[in-house]
Amino acid sequence: MSHMWLESLITENAQQGFELAMKLSRMGVKYTQPSDEVRGKLRSSYEENADSLIASSQVVAINFQTVAAANNYWRS
Amino acid sequence: MSHMWLESLITENAQQGFELAMKLSRMGVKYTQPSDEVRGKLRSSYEENADSLIASSQVVAINFQTVAAANNYWRS
Amino acid sequence: MSHMWLESLITENAQQGFELAMKLSRMGVKYTQPSDEVRGKLRSSYEENADSLIASSQVVAINFQTVAAANNYWRS
Amino acid sequence: MSHMWLESLITENAQQGFELAMKLSRMGVKYTQPSDEVRGKLRSSYEENADSLIASSQVVAINFQTVAAANNYWRS
Amino acid sequence: MSHMWLESLITENAQQGFELAMKLSRMGVKYTQPSDEVRGKLRSSYEENADSLIASSQVVAINFQTVAAANNYWRS
Amino acid sequence: MSHMWLESLITENAQQGFELAMKLSRMGVKYTQPSDEVRGKLRSSYEENADSLIASSQVVAINFQTVAAANNYWRS
Repeated sequence: MSHMWLESLITENAQQGFELAMKLSRMGVKYTQPSDEVRGKLRSSYEENADSLIASSQVVAINFQTVAAANNYWRS
Repeated sequence: MSHMWLESLITENAQQGFELAMKLSRMGVKYTQPSDEVRGKLRSSYEENADSLIASSQVVAINFQTVAAANNYWRS
Repeated sequence: MSHMWLESLITENAQQGFELAMKLSRMGVKYTQPSDEVRGKLRSSYEENADSLIASSQVVAINFQTVAAANNYWRS
Repeated sequence: MSHMWLESLITENAQQGFELAMKLSRMGVKYTQPSDEVRGKLRSSYEENADSLIASSQVVAINFQTVAAANNYWRS
Repeated sequence: MSHMWLESLITENAQQGFELAMKLSRMGVKYTQPSDEVRGKLRSSYEENADSLIASSQVVAINFQTVAAANNYWRS
Repeated sequence: MSHMWLESLITENAQQGFELAMKLSRMGVKYTQPSDEVRGKLRSSYEENADSLIASSQVVAINFQTVAAANNYWRS
């Protein structure tokens, strides 16, 4: 991908870190399926499927581990 | 998400940490499916499906790894 | 959950740590499905399903990572 | 489980560590389904199912992470 | 595989690290299914399957943990 | 398994480490299904199934985390 979308793993606080983990999870999908149109069609089905939502939450959890470690867990 | 729901990963004890891991797991779903109504409908099905419950428990386990590390495992 | 069920991640030895990992895995299910009756019904099906048992063992493995790290791997 | 089956996570070498990871994975199943008879029946089906075998290998991989860390990766 | 495709886990920045995680995930598939033709055929189906895309994103997330740790999270 | 197949987790470089992760993933299957014949039959089906290939790549990713950590990420 030619444009820069990930400048750093460092965030100001834990919630921003969680939101970065969301973004990483979505980008993992986008690199595999770059078409906005196809992803849009798929969204309407997986957003109403409990198992897909749980699986999505799992990917976020894994990425959040990475972001949290990068930020030393935002310990003050 | 505009309001603040995750102030810190630090909790007083291990059980509160586990409960924070539950919250993180649910928020991973909520970011993907923001509608309370849709999530409510899905809940009635996955709550009675053993494989969905095991998958949910797995997401909690992953998030608990993060929270536990953040708290240095609540070693006294 | 109002009562205290997780006092600490520290255990006397590795086997007790594994058993605590079992407990954490079950509690991850119980927080999502609090009804003893529903969980009891589900148990009879997943206990005889190989894939469900493998998935359960995976959740235990993830929680055991956390407990083992907390205990510094019970290195003497 | 009343008898002692896990004395330590420390092994002499990496291969014994891998074999301990196998054992941990099987014990995760056994704690959930204690009946030797039921597990024996299930084995004949999942042993010939590619996805079950891959899932089993994943549980071993997770447990091997724990055992390898405990042993400081058997670095000499 | 006889040619060299993985020189190092070190990358200049986080985004390149994410892209290396993508590559590692694809190579994990390629080692198991070396035929470009077969992988090409499969791609057209999994690229339009939401659950396959989420699963792919999960593999990337796991590999990104490794790459991020190798790079000390690109902390400046 | 009586013969020695895993002497060490240390490899000369990252690519050899990835290949060792492949081997660990396969051995996780082989310990559960020792028959070369049965595994050979299964291979022809999962090698042409996208989800099985993604799942295989995930096991490799998990084992690669272990091997990479053992080698201190081949940082020069």
